[in-house]
Amino acid sequence: MTEPVDPADAEDFLRLFYTEHPNEGDADRRVAWVRAEIDLTGTYHHTTAELTFGAQVAWRNSARCIGRLYWRSLRVRDLRAVRTADDVAEHCVQHLRQAWNGGKLRPLMSVFAPEAPNRPAPRIWNELLIRYAGYPTEDGGVLGDPRYLGFTDRVTTLGWRPTEPRGAFDVLPLVVETPEEGPRLYDLPADAVREVPITHPELPWLTELGLRWHAVPAISNIRMVIGGVSYPAAPFNGWYMGTEIGARNLADTERYNLLPEVARRLGLDTSSETTLWRDRALVELNRAVLHSFAAAGVTITDHHTESDRFLKHVAKEQRAGRTCPADWSWIVPPMSGSQTPVFHRYYDTEHLRPEFVLDDDAAH
Amino acid sequence: MTEPVDPADAEDFLRLFYTEHPNEGDADRRVAWVRAEIDLTGTYHHTTAELTFGAQVAWRNSARCIGRLYWRSLRVRDLRAVRTADDVAEHCVQHLRQAWNGGKLRPLMSVFAPEAPNRPAPRIWNELLIRYAGYPTEDGGVLGDPRYLGFTDRVTTLGWRPTEPRGAFDVLPLVVETPEEGPRLYDLPADAVREVPITHPELPWLTELGLRWHAVPAISNIRMVIGGVSYPAAPFNGWYMGTEIGARNLADTERYNLLPEVARRLGLDTSSETTLWRDRALVELNRAVLHSFAAAGVTITDHHTESDRFLKHVAKEQRAGRTCPADWSWIVPPMSGSQTPVFHRYYDTEHLRPEFVLDDDAAH
Ligand code: HEM
Ligand code: HEM
Repeated sequence: MTEPVDPADAEDFLRLFYTEHPNEGDADRRVAWVRAEIDLTGTYHHTTAELTFGAQVAWRNSARCIGRLYWRSLRVRDLRAVRTADDVAEHCVQHLRQAWNGGKLRPLMSVFAPEAPNRPAPRIWNELLIRYAGYPTEDGGVLGDPRYLGFTDRVTTLGWRPTEPRGAFDVLPLVVETPEEGPRLYDLPADAVREVPITHPELPWLTELGLRWHAVPAISNIRMVIGGVSYPAAPFNGWYMGTEIGARNLADTERYNLLPEVARRLGLDTSSETTLWRDRALVELNRAVLHSFAAAGVTITDHHTESDRFLKHVAKEQRAGRTCPADWSWIVPPMSGSQTPVFHRYYDTEHLRPEFVLDDDAAH
Repeated sequence: MTEPVDPADAEDFLRLFYTEHPNEGDADRRVAWVRAEIDLTGTYHHTTAELTFGAQVAWRNSARCIGRLYWRSLRVRDLRAVRTADDVAEHCVQHLRQAWNGGKLRPLMSVFAPEAPNRPAPRIWNELLIRYAGYPTEDGGVLGDPRYLGFTDRVTTLGWRPTEPRGAFDVLPLVVETPEEGPRLYDLPADAVREVPITHPELPWLTELGLRWHAVPAISNIRMVIGGVSYPAAPFNGWYMGTEIGARNLADTERYNLLPEVARRLGLDTSSETTLWRDRALVELNRAVLHSFAAAGVTITDHHTESDRFLKHVAKEQRAGRTCPADWSWIVPPMSGSQTPVFHRYYDTEHLRPEFVLDDDAAH
């Protein structure tokens, strides 16, 4: 059951909107209107300008995101009127096509209906719009992405059948749930799932590993809260920082865990940790990721460049008279931490709104 | 001016001591005694057993230290009676010799006099007993360790003269200050300063860079506080984790900043960050450090092994019914962070005493 919106939350947001948009007119009038609307209905409607600004500021306030320099560039698709699962799924597909933009990725968000008292909203079950299935194998291992073993199992129970033979990079179906229809499954059309085959600038055998990754990272299970109104389905994407793929998705021991194989192919001595075989394999895998995206003409960034940009962003926010909350343990990249300038300082940890909220706050 | 010891702080510590030493007798009697002693003198004397335990637990409580599995192995030299600068310096030299132990390093602490009301204690100015001078060069650069430009300048003002020609690894003099004598300088004898020349298992040109590092990392400017009593001079050492040298001291852009040179020698393309030349050079420099210490028969540990050990320690502490406070941003190694298991969890951040206190809490 959704609680009525707290009018104070609404007012805080509206005053922020008018402070940052001095030409938009009179805050007091809008606040009075919204208070009346909340009185009557328990919630209120954001204007499209408010929604767009709210989404941009939710990004600006994302303490874990290193990519915030371009927060003003976020485009927002106002899809609050979309109600059926079919339509939500279709608009997710369109989102992926628009975000792709021929390889020159665009930061984009699609905002579906908010929650309202007595009116639950559609939800997307997937953590990201595009992710790969994980299957248990006979020998106790996993084919594909171990992170999605549970999700793969759930969609299979709901009737999903992967194309045979199963592979390590089978795109999972979208699961959209509406109060009226329950969860429904949708296979993503091939042209919405752009992928990059992973090759290495110097090591031909890396191509033989048959690795690939999807181009558009679109998070779809994070709730956006603006001025007290909660948007549970508001998938958004930027572009990848290489380490997300090369140092986490493909390298984490609980994910594709590819470093032992890469090290073996590199001929490294893996008999002892002191040879730093993990570290060497990690660098080569990350070089491969950055090289492959560049070769395919798909936007990507590296952790050194992005760290510099982030510190520019922090300085810019300071000049604008704003604090920039940041979570050190998420901002510092997962490899070569101390070689990036973001390592060598502290950050504000104040919590600001509008915001993104993870309903299930798992460790990263 | 040192304030009198708070009897509650003393009691907290003494009860901890007796809880963890059930065979030592009656806590109440000792607490009553100490309360009377504080009443009379404003402070109290730790027994040598209390001092040793206090030091070990200060280590156990060091949220930033990944090396705590062996906290019980800390040996403590009780040097509270030592008063003159000459004697403090001489005992620091002995500390370095005992810690060295023929290359099989021993965790060791030398505890000099505590502060007491109307009785200031000796202090050691150096951050570590062994560190290298930094000199400004004509072209605006630095010869040696840029971190110690200021310290080098200060000791030069006090009369220190480096051996000419100056080098990149000139050991700084010890500065011991007593209330009676003021600051006094002491050159460390060569046999107290064991160093390891840095070579690489496969790259002969790395030897030509003429790099070296000292074997014993002995922190000497951190105050230890046990049961309300403050020990400002209590230098301690463990052994190095390779990244401290290879990823920080020799690699930080504000320190020896050697990665551009290493990358150049490796023939890497440094025209763009996306080639990950920093990351590749970083791995080779760290391999060199671990290799060199091993070849010289000097104790060292790598960040993978030490991360595993630390998680063993956390589990052990939990079994003992204790929380293990840890600071994620210090525990996670400065390279290949997500490849170490310490990255993938959260830690208790409770603050426990006895403790080490940095008087000047600078960013790391
Ligand atoms: C434009 C390019 C972008 C880059 C390079 C970027 C980079 C990153 C990175 C590296 C992370 C950490 C991911 C992890 O460790 O799992 C992150 C997290 C995050 N980013 Fe961004 N980002 C971008 C765009 C966006 C956009 C458009 C939004 C929202 C409108 C956003 C919101 C977030 C949020 C909420 C998180 C935390 C996710 C979580 O808690 O799991 N980012 N970003
Ligand atoms: C036995 C081997 C040891 C290892 C491998 C080890 C490892 C480390 C490492 C890697 C750091 C982080 C350093 C940095 O990032 O600057 C650290 C910090 C620290 N360690 Fe240990 N340590 C050891 C022994 C000790 C001992 C014997 C003590 C005290 C009795 C100690 C107390 C501390 C403290 C207080 C810090 C924080 C220093 C600061 O705030 O600058 N460690 N240790």
